[in-house]
Amino acid sequence: ADRELLDILLANGAITRDQYDRLLKKKEPLTKNDVEISLKKGLHFKTADGNFETKIGGRMHLQAAYHDRDNIAGQNIDDGLEIRRGRLYAKGVLYHDWKYTAEYDFAGNKTHIKDLWVAYTGLKSYGLDFIGFGHQKQPYSLEVEMSSNDIPFIERALDYGFTEAVVDRALGMRLQTHGHYWFAAAGLYGESIGKGNDEGWGTAGRFILAPLHDQEKVVHLGVRGAYREPNDDRQQDFHYKSTHQSNLKLVNTGTMRNVDNTALVGAEAAFVYGPVSLEGEYTHAMVERKKGLSDLDFDGFHVQATWSLTGESRAAAYKLKDGEFKRLKPHQYFSLSQGGLGAWELAARYAWIDLNDQEVKGGRAQDFTMALNWYLNPNIRLMFDWTHQLNNSRIKQAEDLDIFQLRTQLTF
Amino acid sequence: ADRELLDILLANGAITRDQYDRLLKKKEPLTKNDVEISLKKGLHFKTADGNFETKIGGRMHLQAAYHDRDNIAGQNIDDGLEIRRGRLYAKGVLYHDWKYTAEYDFAGNKTHIKDLWVAYTGLKSYGLDFIGFGHQKQPYSLEVEMSSNDIPFIERALDYGFTEAVVDRALGMRLQTHGHYWFAAAGLYGESIGKGNDEGWGTAGRFILAPLHDQEKVVHLGVRGAYREPNDDRQQDFHYKSTHQSNLKLVNTGTMRNVDNTALVGAEAAFVYGPVSLEGEYTHAMVERKKGLSDLDFDGFHVQATWSLTGESRAAAYKLKDGEFKRLKPHQYFSLSQGGLGAWELAARYAWIDLNDQEVKGGRAQDFTMALNWYLNPNIRLMFDWTHQLNNSRIKQAEDLDIFQLRTQLTF
Amino acid sequence: ADRELLDILLANGAITRDQYDRLLKKKEPLTKNDVEISLKKGLHFKTADGNFETKIGGRMHLQAAYHDRDNIAGQNIDDGLEIRRGRLYAKGVLYHDWKYTAEYDFAGNKTHIKDLWVAYTGLKSYGLDFIGFGHQKQPYSLEVEMSSNDIPFIERALDYGFTEAVVDRALGMRLQTHGHYWFAAAGLYGESIGKGNDEGWGTAGRFILAPLHDQEKVVHLGVRGAYREPNDDRQQDFHYKSTHQSNLKLVNTGTMRNVDNTALVGAEAAFVYGPVSLEGEYTHAMVERKKGLSDLDFDGFHVQATWSLTGESRAAAYKLKDGEFKRLKPHQYFSLSQGGLGAWELAARYAWIDLNDQEVKGGRAQDFTMALNWYLNPNIRLMFDWTHQLNNSRIKQAEDLDIFQLRTQLTF
Repeated sequence: ADRELLDILLANGAITRDQYDRLLKKKEPLTKNDVEISLKKGLHFKTADGNFETKIGGRMHLQAAYHDRDNIAGQNIDDGLEIRRGRLYAKGVLYHDWKYTAEYDFAGNKTHIKDLWVAYTGLKSYGLDFIGFGHQKQPYSLEVEMSSNDIPFIERALDYGFTEAVVDRALGMRLQTHGHYWFAAAGLYGESIGKGNDEGWGTAGRFILAPLHDQEKVVHLGVRGAYREPNDDRQQDFHYKSTHQSNLKLVNTGTMRNVDNTALVGAEAAFVYGPVSLEGEYTHAMVERKKGLSDLDFDGFHVQATWSLTGESRAAAYKLKDGEFKRLKPHQYFSLSQGGLGAWELAARYAWIDLNDQEVKGGRAQDFTMALNWYLNPNIRLMFDWTHQLNNSRIKQAEDLDIFQLRTQLTF
Repeated sequence: ADRELLDILLANGAITRDQYDRLLKKKEPLTKNDVEISLKKGLHFKTADGNFETKIGGRMHLQAAYHDRDNIAGQNIDDGLEIRRGRLYAKGVLYHDWKYTAEYDFAGNKTHIKDLWVAYTGLKSYGLDFIGFGHQKQPYSLEVEMSSNDIPFIERALDYGFTEAVVDRALGMRLQTHGHYWFAAAGLYGESIGKGNDEGWGTAGRFILAPLHDQEKVVHLGVRGAYREPNDDRQQDFHYKSTHQSNLKLVNTGTMRNVDNTALVGAEAAFVYGPVSLEGEYTHAMVERKKGLSDLDFDGFHVQATWSLTGESRAAAYKLKDGEFKRLKPHQYFSLSQGGLGAWELAARYAWIDLNDQEVKGGRAQDFTMALNWYLNPNIRLMFDWTHQLNNSRIKQAEDLDIFQLRTQLTF
Repeated sequence: ADRELLDILLANGAITRDQYDRLLKKKEPLTKNDVEISLKKGLHFKTADGNFETKIGGRMHLQAAYHDRDNIAGQNIDDGLEIRRGRLYAKGVLYHDWKYTAEYDFAGNKTHIKDLWVAYTGLKSYGLDFIGFGHQKQPYSLEVEMSSNDIPFIERALDYGFTEAVVDRALGMRLQTHGHYWFAAAGLYGESIGKGNDEGWGTAGRFILAPLHDQEKVVHLGVRGAYREPNDDRQQDFHYKSTHQSNLKLVNTGTMRNVDNTALVGAEAAFVYGPVSLEGEYTHAMVERKKGLSDLDFDGFHVQATWSLTGESRAAAYKLKDGEFKRLKPHQYFSLSQGGLGAWELAARYAWIDLNDQEVKGGRAQDFTMALNWYLNPNIRLMFDWTHQLNNSRIKQAEDLDIFQLRTQLTF
């Protein structure tokens, strides 16, 4: 009733116009004990001094996949519906200088710890954004660093065959910082959770130069490297499946043994100009082996373009401090009653991987993907992907295979 | 201090009686940033405009089961204590036109995705309450549609042998709507989570006519049907266990093979008159088989009555818009210090199923259950069920078996 | 704007000084609907009348373990990093007289229900603090009753070999109460979750006398007993591993068969004087066997001391009403910018267990642990433990083994 009360007091002459204006203008704490609440992007609480923050939320990725053939090389192809991701998280800020995330996935009626880490942010005046401890992503690839909520395709590209195996989440320590035109992150890690106890270790680093980044334009150039020594089992494998549910490995080195270490080096670039974006990543993988076995070299890359039909720019979703893009923010939200369309985005991707070297015949494959994405509002995205398999040196019958995927994505 | 301030301003003549009344009457947002909070039924947040809502909560069902025999037909009977359900959920409303639920169960130290869906509610002016996508119940049976928090017995009846197998939760799409005197829901589904990838599909629908429903009386009449084609394994089975923990299948078709499809048709009715309710459901199940095998026909039903000793009516918990009853709302809450009793309810159920047809000898069984339920407050319910097995054509020794179950139920 | 409005109304003569004072003094509810919010120890909501409360939070224990030998008695020793605990919880108060906790652990990508119970607290005027139902700890040992967030060592002591096996969490009923100088708890239990259906049962009780306890000093003396009958499998075993991740059982009875029952009796004591604390626990375990097998007797104990280098007293964290210590509360919090150190604590522990009796040669072992703990703030603790294995009658090669453990602990 405050405004109404003030109106009345003014009209009655109990307060002056000047007093009225001053009282109205004063910004109040959002609740009496200074905790602001928002329900828009997760359930979000923040103390007015910013020293404490808590956010609770999750995501659902409901996906359907369909291959246009039932059987390839004598193998039945799995299609169907699945909950690709079903998560809950809590994240927050504690005593100003600490932040944390605890995110759990229950897809497939299984439990997976995703992000579970605590980070110290009190070294910013010393040039370090944070140092984090726990289960977290390793800094290497733009596509892997970006959330599955944000990348413009339903699944990551063929070169994820390398990055999934070497630089996805692991237990360890990560340092990260950024300047006006650059970003750097590096980390030291053991294995991921559940990968056995007598563990291997790895390190990874990523450096980004972004000489131009505003609300409409981005130039993003990056180099990165990763090194990993395996468990005592001395094994490594690289593969890529046609879909998440699928049992069809389009490329697959199988288990490489006597591995001393695996190293990845690569580069990435992204450019945004208004509603159009271009992005590419390249990785060269080297597997050093023991017992006189010769080293192995593999390569992979993808290039992709997106075009926002409704005019939004991915530049507005670029976060240099995290070295990544968030997902497209629709200018207007879909609403039948109020006439909003949401954002519509077209995307295309070409990917290539070569897992053949020496006696390892993992296959050389290429595919092409077209995507249509509908961002109904900041929480809901519908995605449709069509992937066409081009050459495949490992499974000839996989050539010209068409794969259709559909996702209903909710973040809450 | 607002009311007190207004009192003073009125007394001092700074505002008029009329202004005073208007200011007092105006419903204020519960917090300054317009987020209302309630802790009564889960942790509940709602923006004043109703466009956003978040609810966090869960349930615990702690159950004990006891069979009055240790051994039936050479088989030891499992008794004991268990967490029957141990859940957490988040649900809410986003941008007015969307609602979602994410509910996970951890009973038995296992993970199960229960409800995980998002629904569009923006078509109400076109006559559709919502269209939902994700993992959700299939509309067929009142007893299955009702939450385990709400049904007046600890476990569902013998005909759950059909409904559990065919119309429990699955991944898919559901449409639902209602009018003043009717309710309709239909859906199209793949399999449930974790049921393999090369999946079957099904459809289900339910129509309710409720010519009378107020706070004291309900007449609820329904018809329903479901159709499902199995996985490539072409299998189906129907069974019903004596308790959840039990290894004793009272009836059991075993695996029926070469199944082309399974169809259920049925009817349901419920009547409430003050503290008394009657309810019944009937299902006819048809299994069509391939390879010249003849079709199979099975039947099952249950009828039940409840009587609220403390006078509450289940009519007050009838929600036609969801086609179901919520649980009894106690008039007064149990309190030693303030003298409340909670609500006390007696219930009785007779159930019958016939799983014998052709060469399939799943058994014909009947049982009778008496229940005493104590609703201490809206969050806590204690339940005691005594089930007496009547005829059983499959396991003669199960006849006259008495089963006692106890539940401590918490919803938070 | 209330205060400012009142200032103006006073100045303008619309209210009197007396009215002004009265309005200012009146304690306001923290939010308009009387829900207080805090983000400091979990996300905490409380109605102003205290009848409802909800708290949401969790914990992360990120641990590293290292043994100074790779191989003992022909067995490789597992070292490495792990998420020792990764939890989420909801707890609260409902309708004044009820409280509950639901806590789930997802460490190792597995699901474990930890606390999941509801308790009635409406009998306080009859001398009972609460009666709780569900999955909960059994009252026996100070070290087991205390949370892993609070004990001053990374893992519990050698005599946890007895208590883990007999009195850790189980499904059942617990009664608890306390007076000015005493605490008592007792319970009746089935098995823990997932331990099979045809279950054993147990009972446990603990009585504490605390003739002195203030903010600087504590005298805590306790006796306790537990009795348990096993499952129909009639088995029991006691063992203790060198670390949680380790596959090295320092002592291990193996499976003892034909067990009729297991009983534990013991005593515990704790003394705090300013920054110094002493604590000890002793358990005598008796295993009665059937089929004429003679009974087995085992013993174990630990004594430990802690010293807070920064002056905090564990007495301030003593909660007699729960019969336990919470963790040390730092006087000042670590902050580079504001100069706080947090609390620093040194601790030492000597532990001894004898699992040899009759034909059972589980081993007799002793170890010594030194710990350095850094409590950065109420939510974050870093721990470093060095354990030196002394005599070991079972595995001679384990003598003089040094084990190093590190924990990053977050509670949110």
